[in-house]
Amino acid sequence: MPSTTPHRVVIVGGGFAGLNTARALRRAPVEITLVDKRNFHLFQPLLYQVATGALSPANIAAPLRSILSKQRNCQVLMGDVQGFDLAARKVLFTDGECPYDTLVVAAGARHSYFGHAEWERVAPGLKTVEDATEIRRRVLSAFEEAERTDDSAERREWLTFVIVGAGPTGVELAGAIAEIATHSLKHDFREINPSDARVVLVEAGPRVLAAFPEDLSAKAQASLERLGVQVRVSTKVEAINERCVTLQSASGAETLATRTALWGAGVQASPLAKLLGDATGAEVDRAGRVTVLPDLTLPGHPEIFVVGDMALARDPAGKPLPGVAPVAMQQGKFVAKRIRDRLRGKQTDAPFRYFNKGNLATIGKSAAVAELGKLKFSGFWAWVLWLFVHLMYIVSFRNRLLVLTQWSWSYFTYDRSARLITGEAKKDGQSSSS
Amino acid sequence: MPSTTPHRVVIVGGGFAGLNTARALRRAPVEITLVDKRNFHLFQPLLYQVATGALSPANIAAPLRSILSKQRNCQVLMGDVQGFDLAARKVLFTDGECPYDTLVVAAGARHSYFGHAEWERVAPGLKTVEDATEIRRRVLSAFEEAERTDDSAERREWLTFVIVGAGPTGVELAGAIAEIATHSLKHDFREINPSDARVVLVEAGPRVLAAFPEDLSAKAQASLERLGVQVRVSTKVEAINERCVTLQSASGAETLATRTALWGAGVQASPLAKLLGDATGAEVDRAGRVTVLPDLTLPGHPEIFVVGDMALARDPAGKPLPGVAPVAMQQGKFVAKRIRDRLRGKQTDAPFRYFNKGNLATIGKSAAVAELGKLKFSGFWAWVLWLFVHLMYIVSFRNRLLVLTQWSWSYFTYDRSARLITGEAKKDGQSSSS
Repeated sequence: MPSTTPHRVVIVGGGFAGLNTARALRRAPVEITLVDKRNFHLFQPLLYQVATGALSPANIAAPLRSILSKQRNCQVLMGDVQGFDLAARKVLFTDGECPYDTLVVAAGARHSYFGHAEWERVAPGLKTVEDATEIRRRVLSAFEEAERTDDSAERREWLTFVIVGAGPTGVELAGAIAEIATHSLKHDFREINPSDARVVLVEAGPRVLAAFPEDLSAKAQASLERLGVQVRVSTKVEAINERCVTLQSASGAETLATRTALWGAGVQASPLAKLLGDATGAEVDRAGRVTVLPDLTLPGHPEIFVVGDMALARDPAGKPLPGVAPVAMQQGKFVAKRIRDRLRGKQTDAPFRYFNKGNLATIGKSAAVAELGKLKFSGFWAWVLWLFVHLMYIVSFRNRLLVLTQWSWSYFTYDRSARLITGEAKKDGQSSSS
Repeated sequence: MPSTTPHRVVIVGGGFAGLNTARALRRAPVEITLVDKRNFHLFQPLLYQVATGALSPANIAAPLRSILSKQRNCQVLMGDVQGFDLAARKVLFTDGECPYDTLVVAAGARHSYFGHAEWERVAPGLKTVEDATEIRRRVLSAFEEAERTDDSAERREWLTFVIVGAGPTGVELAGAIAEIATHSLKHDFREINPSDARVVLVEAGPRVLAAFPEDLSAKAQASLERLGVQVRVSTKVEAINERCVTLQSASGAETLATRTALWGAGVQASPLAKLLGDATGAEVDRAGRVTVLPDLTLPGHPEIFVVGDMALARDPAGKPLPGVAPVAMQQGKFVAKRIRDRLRGKQTDAPFRYFNKGNLATIGKSAAVAELGKLKFSGFWAWVLWLFVHLMYIVSFRNRLLVLTQWSWSYFTYDRSARLITGEAKKDGQSSSS
């Protein structure tokens, strides 16, 4: 498609999918506009480390403008996309619009409370920097409140932490909170013993880390239990409020009195996915993801790609691809290649293929589970691998150095220095002590 | 005063004064309770580096419990002090009380808007971590808004920054914002040239850094002007709103159209100072500080010490001591010594004497002014001294290491990696782009 004005690519979302699309187009004869609500790319897999006071937000976030400052064919725009005019090929903002020739939508996902929106207030999830500092505030404030109260029942409630959902986020949060209680805060209090804290991880399915093979799930559960986490599988959450979580399992109902519930269960795609589904006739699933064609475009709209957590793509066996960073990154690169090919006049309908390099999850310090093809392992060396892979993917070199310094220090001292209680307590949520 | 129950010391405030009192009592036969609204000690002199994206909040803050975890005679309590019952010797909280034998009040100060409370909303000051991230959000968002708009007058407004007050905070903020515009953001935008930004520093007095000798003030002003800052001395602020700042000087009135005004002028002591003044008859000055006796106690109450920014103490010549960290630290140590002496039965009415080791202020990178007794110098070596002194005083060793790594990196690259726009725009303030 040679023309005098360059081909305009608009990318919505600066997460793994969007950012990889933009970077893989760096030498293409295109004019890219990357739009994001935030001014930074967030390394979400490490967000739980911010929520548990081990890292600062800036350690796992890099300004999009910095990352792309040398890429002259790319402009970054902070803006909140409201919708699209597919006929006129325009992205619509609250206060303006932006025309495109090719559109890449990668706006990600938030939590899903499965129809219980009222739970969000009492059991926050972990998707943004603000979520992470809010969870940090709640967890640390709970220990402060336990120290202040003279009422032993209330103290018990403040020292009970319930995490819903045993996917990677839930498992990592549970492990980290157990470690904070037994190690990081060991000498910090006078009235309470932080290691009296009770951490309960609740999972509706039959095992933790369901994406892993069964034996690794069992190893992960054993690691969690060694850290003192109580794991409840095949257990559903019936109700959550400021004072308790009600569980239901084959053995009956149970109510856990707790002041701190955290949410690590389902995800819900950006509402932009439904907008696109409605406009193009593509199916939208229960998690709000729009079903894409094998080449990641929408039916009748080869100029629109949908990638990352908001897209429902399938592997050749028809199984949906998981909402993880490697899928998003590979999709971003695939889309960039398709755009380059088309500009060169090369038409292909080759489908996107996900190359699964492996699966990794950590459980507290020095423990992890890893699945690399047929290879499965767990324990210390899996954790070293996890460390290495995550450091390699952290976007800027400088952050890599800082995160490594911080981690090495924490590793040898159990110190979590970013233990700041900041921000105000939400009026309608749990009360705060500040 | 030997007795069977240990002497109870309650310290209100974990800033430089309160923390130094607590630490200097570590071997004393006392039972200390340190009360603070926040769970961390904040190294306030570096707060402007958080506000300008060079450091993260956790780099300049350390949890009070960590700092004091090994000090077995000290308990830390997060709580909001509402008042005192001086007759019954109790500190009153919203939800409880805490008895004392000796009380040390060091609750610090906030900004003063000199009777214009409505300016706070449009021109935030810099005293807390939340203030710093709010200023960071406004400054960075201003560049984003300038990039988004097509209206050249509006763009001009977004690229104009007015800082009121040329004390150390105002000077440091102005210098840092000028550096961000000319260096850190150099390649980041496509529609605007960040170095077109106009930074205006307004001071009602006749010169910047009034606490320094005149020749150093002149050098500081020259350094600011080299960075591109427009300095307006002998100029009063008449009005501030969302769109402009109105100035008044001998040469007449002037209105600067700006979307970002920042406040670095006066301070107002914690309301606890007035409470104590009213209860004891001690005089309270216009800045809300309570006048203390030469030994830092209140009239008729030798068991109550008031220290730090909320106390009005004077040097032998009758000049009020400045509200700076070294005064607060020395006062804290003095109070601890008085308490130890009294417990040993040693009565003394020796007054507090401030030993002024010198005065330091930075203006952007590699420039500073220093006054050490009769020695005055400026430029690069003053800056190295500033760096060294501030690093030495940063509370925990680990932070010192991290801050040094971060600074070295920024020094050679001009990179300010903590450039995150977080939190929500205040509804009643400036609009946000996120």
